[in-house]
Amino acid sequence: MKKFAVILAGCGVFDGAEIHEATLSLYAIAKQGAAYEIFAPNIEQHHVINHLTGEEMPEKRNVLVESARIARGAIKDLSELNVADFDALLFPGGFGVAKNLCTLAFQGADAVVDPQIEEVVLAFHKAEKPIAALCIAPAMIAKIIQGAAVTIGQDKGTIQAIEAMGGNHETTTHGEVIIDENNKVYSTPCYMLEASILDIADGAENIVAAVLQDLK
Amino acid sequence: MKKFAVILAGCGVFDGAEIHEATLSLYAIAKQGAAYEIFAPNIEQHHVINHLTGEEMPEKRNVLVESARIARGAIKDLSELNVADFDALLFPGGFGVAKNLCTLAFQGADAVVDPQIEEVVLAFHKAEKPIAALCIAPAMIAKIIQGAAVTIGQDKGTIQAIEAMGGNHETTTHGEVIIDENNKVYSTPCYMLEASILDIADGAENIVAAVLQDLK
Repeated sequence: MKKFAVILAGCGVFDGAEIHEATLSLYAIAKQGAAYEIFAPNIEQHHVINHLTGEEMPEKRNVLVESARIARGAIKDLSELNVADFDALLFPGGFGVAKNLCTLAFQGADAVVDPQIEEVVLAFHKAEKPIAALCIAPAMIAKIIQGAAVTIGQDKGTIQAIEAMGGNHETTTHGEVIIDENNKVYSTPCYMLEASILDIADGAENIVAAVLQDLK
Repeated sequence: MKKFAVILAGCGVFDGAEIHEATLSLYAIAKQGAAYEIFAPNIEQHHVINHLTGEEMPEKRNVLVESARIARGAIKDLSELNVADFDALLFPGGFGVAKNLCTLAFQGADAVVDPQIEEVVLAFHKAEKPIAALCIAPAMIAKIIQGAAVTIGQDKGTIQAIEAMGGNHETTTHGEVIIDENNKVYSTPCYMLEASILDIADGAENIVAAVLQDLK
């Protein structure tokens, strides 16, 4: 059975992992006969957003502790991830990727990636194992893997940032997956486009199918 | 297009709405060609549980604000729910149902239901509109609608509480839906059984299909 490591960035679209993308990725993996383990870095969130009002809350939350909500407690500290135990890596999206795992939301092309995230991505890349990224996560992958071909859909500002970081962006619509065969990087836009939950399920299913096809 | 009102109890299995059940219910509704709006009561959570350790955290969180994470901000205060605008009601599970929407987790058969939740459930019942409940939520429905036939799976303690409250429990396994035709109450066990995310998707799909069949 093929096994994915899934990395979460918190719990909630505006300051963490996007919940539908995370859940429907886990569902897509299980539905297609593969397995997963869930990880998150044990770091403080950049901030906490009230998802009802969009305003910042005067609180502190931890990325691993909040990610555990999506994982129902079945989650490990990212420092325990051993690349040899997995066939592929998957990042759901959400602003947490661009706020907690790297600083893309604040610094664009000058984004700094969390060192532990960078190390894990480069280790999968070096091992020639597929890396799947949804929504905004492909932009972070383009920062880490120089010259990677990715998609985040059609958002002009993000596309400019990806190209300024040396990435190659391909415009896509709902459910489409861009495959960079050389780098084994897979990406799909999800909620980076105006999307319904059905589009998210399609994107998650298609990206997981593409990775599993590669692993055959 | 048939429209569900979905009521959330927070965000996270141990103190709020179960995230997979909530997400996969929304997905099942959309996939079967129906629509939904999401609501939650504007009340404080009973407590906040660290989902990594299972321990209580010295924090306060609001049920509506945390539920907004699952809804991506597209949520309304339960006080704005107008029964006339909807064809059916759906409650995903999670301990939040038994801790925030009622006190079942602490008082068993002597549980007290939040007055606003009770009012909404009784209004759907009076209007003869279907009420769907997943996981632990059917036990709350049995407390509100006297004599309702429900399932929460096979958990003996919860079954005893349901029967002590005057409910009729039917034992089920993964994906099964119990339909109380007189009361138009639909229930399925989900994570009240040892389950995988595939079982949750099946349960959500089957309960939504049963409700839509009734609405034909």
